[in-house]
Amino acid sequence: MKAIKYGVSVLSVAVGLAVSGLSFAVSAEEPTLSEADFEKAQLQYFQRCAGCHGVLRKGATGKNLEPENTLKKGQKRLEKIIALGTEGGMNNFDDLFSKQEISNLATFIQMTPPVPPEMSLEQMRSHTKEYVAPKDYPAKPMHGRNWKNFFVVIERDAGKAAIIDGDTKEIVTHIDTGYAVHVIKGTEHHAIDHAEDVGRFWYTIGRDGKVNKIDLWQTPDKMLVAETKMAYDARDIAVSGDGKYVIAGGYWPAHFVIMDAVTLNPLKVVSTRGYNTKGEFINEARVAAIYTIPTQSAFMVAVKETGQMWQVDYKDLDNLTVTMVSSAEFLHDGFFDPSGRYFQIAANASNKMVVVDTKERKLESMIEVDTLPHPGPGANWIDKECGPVGGTTHLGTGLVSVWGNDPIGHPDQAWKLCYEVETDGAGAFIRTHETSQYVWADQLKHPEPEIQQSVQVFDKDTHEIVKTIRVTEEEGKAALHMEFNADGTEVWVSVWNRTDAKNPTGEIVVYDAKTLKEKHRIKGLTTPTGKFNVFNRMNHKT
Amino acid sequence: MKAIKYGVSVLSVAVGLAVSGLSFAVSAEEPTLSEADFEKAQLQYFQRCAGCHGVLRKGATGKNLEPENTLKKGQKRLEKIIALGTEGGMNNFDDLFSKQEISNLATFIQMTPPVPPEMSLEQMRSHTKEYVAPKDYPAKPMHGRNWKNFFVVIERDAGKAAIIDGDTKEIVTHIDTGYAVHVIKGTEHHAIDHAEDVGRFWYTIGRDGKVNKIDLWQTPDKMLVAETKMAYDARDIAVSGDGKYVIAGGYWPAHFVIMDAVTLNPLKVVSTRGYNTKGEFINEARVAAIYTIPTQSAFMVAVKETGQMWQVDYKDLDNLTVTMVSSAEFLHDGFFDPSGRYFQIAANASNKMVVVDTKERKLESMIEVDTLPHPGPGANWIDKECGPVGGTTHLGTGLVSVWGNDPIGHPDQAWKLCYEVETDGAGAFIRTHETSQYVWADQLKHPEPEIQQSVQVFDKDTHEIVKTIRVTEEEGKAALHMEFNADGTEVWVSVWNRTDAKNPTGEIVVYDAKTLKEKHRIKGLTTPTGKFNVFNRMNHKT
Repeated sequence: MKAIKYGVSVLSVAVGLAVSGLSFAVSAEEPTLSEADFEKAQLQYFQRCAGCHGVLRKGATGKNLEPENTLKKGQKRLEKIIALGTEGGMNNFDDLFSKQEISNLATFIQMTPPVPPEMSLEQMRSHTKEYVAPKDYPAKPMHGRNWKNFFVVIERDAGKAAIIDGDTKEIVTHIDTGYAVHVIKGTEHHAIDHAEDVGRFWYTIGRDGKVNKIDLWQTPDKMLVAETKMAYDARDIAVSGDGKYVIAGGYWPAHFVIMDAVTLNPLKVVSTRGYNTKGEFINEARVAAIYTIPTQSAFMVAVKETGQMWQVDYKDLDNLTVTMVSSAEFLHDGFFDPSGRYFQIAANASNKMVVVDTKERKLESMIEVDTLPHPGPGANWIDKECGPVGGTTHLGTGLVSVWGNDPIGHPDQAWKLCYEVETDGAGAFIRTHETSQYVWADQLKHPEPEIQQSVQVFDKDTHEIVKTIRVTEEEGKAALHMEFNADGTEVWVSVWNRTDAKNPTGEIVVYDAKTLKEKHRIKGLTTPTGKFNVFNRMNHKT
Repeated sequence: MKAIKYGVSVLSVAVGLAVSGLSFAVSAEEPTLSEADFEKAQLQYFQRCAGCHGVLRKGATGKNLEPENTLKKGQKRLEKIIALGTEGGMNNFDDLFSKQEISNLATFIQMTPPVPPEMSLEQMRSHTKEYVAPKDYPAKPMHGRNWKNFFVVIERDAGKAAIIDGDTKEIVTHIDTGYAVHVIKGTEHHAIDHAEDVGRFWYTIGRDGKVNKIDLWQTPDKMLVAETKMAYDARDIAVSGDGKYVIAGGYWPAHFVIMDAVTLNPLKVVSTRGYNTKGEFINEARVAAIYTIPTQSAFMVAVKETGQMWQVDYKDLDNLTVTMVSSAEFLHDGFFDPSGRYFQIAANASNKMVVVDTKERKLESMIEVDTLPHPGPGANWIDKECGPVGGTTHLGTGLVSVWGNDPIGHPDQAWKLCYEVETDGAGAFIRTHETSQYVWADQLKHPEPEIQQSVQVFDKDTHEIVKTIRVTEEEGKAALHMEFNADGTEVWVSVWNRTDAKNPTGEIVVYDAKTLKEKHRIKGLTTPTGKFNVFNRMNHKT
């Protein structure tokens, strides 16, 4: 295999015509790999690096890794960065990759990034499978369990979702899903119209673009009812307010796909390639987050690299209306305010929380926060002075930022920082519940195990940290992501078995939401990550 | 220079992950050209072939010319096709290119198509020029001429626009524009709001993406007041109803750009890359036609290869609302019905006229017509039986198709064929005027000079051709494109000096609209093409 380098040559003629093309020349300087090593490195890059650096290596959360940058660093320096990480936020990978694999990856990123293929609707449809025919869906739950207190749990590195009974703490089943599922969403209560059996159907999106539909009314062995695939690389999914459509967003190809929520048959695909806020074309304009707007018949689609929030009406797919709200780069993850009108999303490279008014279909505000905001599922609560507030953790610093989010009732506080709470370490997830006095923040991004394994809890009134909870002390494990149970009496925290990711040695630790004391440990889970309590999610308890 | 061949290899792993990349291999079989010949062929391809076959050679009006198809045909067959044309509608080029140039073009199209670069807002802005400062724009016309009866005329191969006084038939001036201007548009009367000096400013779009602004109130030497460039390849342009924005569409890059109508400063760029009606990704999703909707604060943007009509609101560029109306491929050129509510556009590869309801923002109808409909500026008139009707010529056959276009007053006739008129040859343009008894159609696409040089006129009541007018008899010339003067008493027809395209040996022939007799010949024009009468265009007289 020979490596190729592109050189752009520009033609222009007297009449003012200018057209440019790529001329091709084979460079002897570019490093090479055998075809087998190239394909393995390409796969490892895709699984572990592309999320931050992009398939085309243009950079996003991570740095640009195109040859013009990587060739300057050279093989040895690149190997060291991959092995040990950097101060700038790059993880170490010496515990995941062998020395030879690190060497090959360092070479791979000095080569021209291969452009993955496109995916047509027809290709997607070829992956659509029916495991249970809709006519055979049960008319009532086929088990005696309190399914509204089920937790749907991502088992990241197993490519599975666990269904856990929140009342009994039993694992009901493990369901095959796509690879490294990022998010699972269910049908929700909606202001305009919603499905009668709201909360029953759940949809997973794998990093590999695989979509699986789960029916919580089925007997455990039949809960997986349908499947399709809408991209090679994907992150988020949502269900329309009326329960009729599922939408999922692609990292590659850069598009979103609207599917029939019953059969998962892909109906509509829309490209998100476009221009960023500086007016530069972005081929890899990835769909980061997708949410159903609780008060509109529309989806909110966040296009990471273009800094655009697309409000997509789903009432007429053939005449699809999209409002492209320009905000800031790079859009990542967000959550609605309690009224369901305002969507609050992190623009992590701009250190801002972006707020979209979905009623007026326009940018409402941009709030300056700290380095790399990342709210995960987010948290809304009432502050004594500021009124309704929202909060976020940060990937880049140990800080929770809290802002007013009630422009009607508290216009002076709205979209302004109310207060900040310093934590011991940078984190990825924040969570609370309307019945709770406390707000929980994890510290997943801190390099020291002791902090990474602890979550911190602060009081809504005093704004002081009341407890630091060491969730695990086992080597190679980290604590992350909190979710309350249906009545708000428990908080569930994941323990990630990071260095033993192929075995079910992860767990979920259940705490009493009032006493903050440990109640239970649910074992037998592989890298448990996001957890979604049916009742809380169907009722927008954020 | 070495030629490159792409081979797609697909990786997949047990967890269901599949990602694909291009692997690179140098092929010895692919034909090669010297760098100089490659660049010349690339330029000639761009100027003469890309319009139908696409820069990336995926095909549209013309066939797909990617190596997988062209290599099968081989050098000799390709040379013959380029030289002599085909029955399928391909022109002959032996009168435009030398034998060596044809040979090089045949080789070029067997090589991998070079991908042209992108263009950022910043690059566009670097081309923005002010020839006359807006503060120096005159408050009233600086000449004694009846500027509302001016004709703005494309001089295609000169890269100029001629301003012709419709009263005196004098050429007022020739203005430098982009290369091979396709369309010129001025400010129009608008149902919601319009500029006070409507009809005064005109905007040209060159095939090279150059945009020029013309002020008809200036003295002839100062009429060119501003300039910019929004693409490498472009076709259409429009001005917003309020006169504040100019929008132009790119063939490459595939996008539209909204500019400040005063300064031509590019403000907003939106990609049109996306999926066609079959759900296949189209990188070269070219903007064919752009119109201002006379009854909405919105533009109509036709994306050729995706078969989508985008209705683009221009009231809020930062929160841009677009309705993507799915219809049929390949959208080309269109015109509004007399009410200004319905847009009628040719989907030429589908042999359909597509109708969009701009009030409801949805597909209204698709009318089956004949091979390759092409209405150019279009024609609307009143038929005795069908009521209001619209009509189109066809590039593929000598036929004018006429359909009802008044769904409110004549619902039974609306969007159905009313009648057809056979002409002697396939044409590109149809035209009439509300004061005229006749409809005019050219026959530009017929291979025989005698027919190509004649236009045909039919009666609105009898539907019979009443006269065939031989506009020119000179070798290498063709007759095309009709435009009425302001009061509808004259019809102006262009004579194209196709084989002497570098000299001002073209002309416009002026006919009496009632007697159909020749009144005048305006000489000294280089390949005169589209003509735009100020009064008719500002008042939507189609």
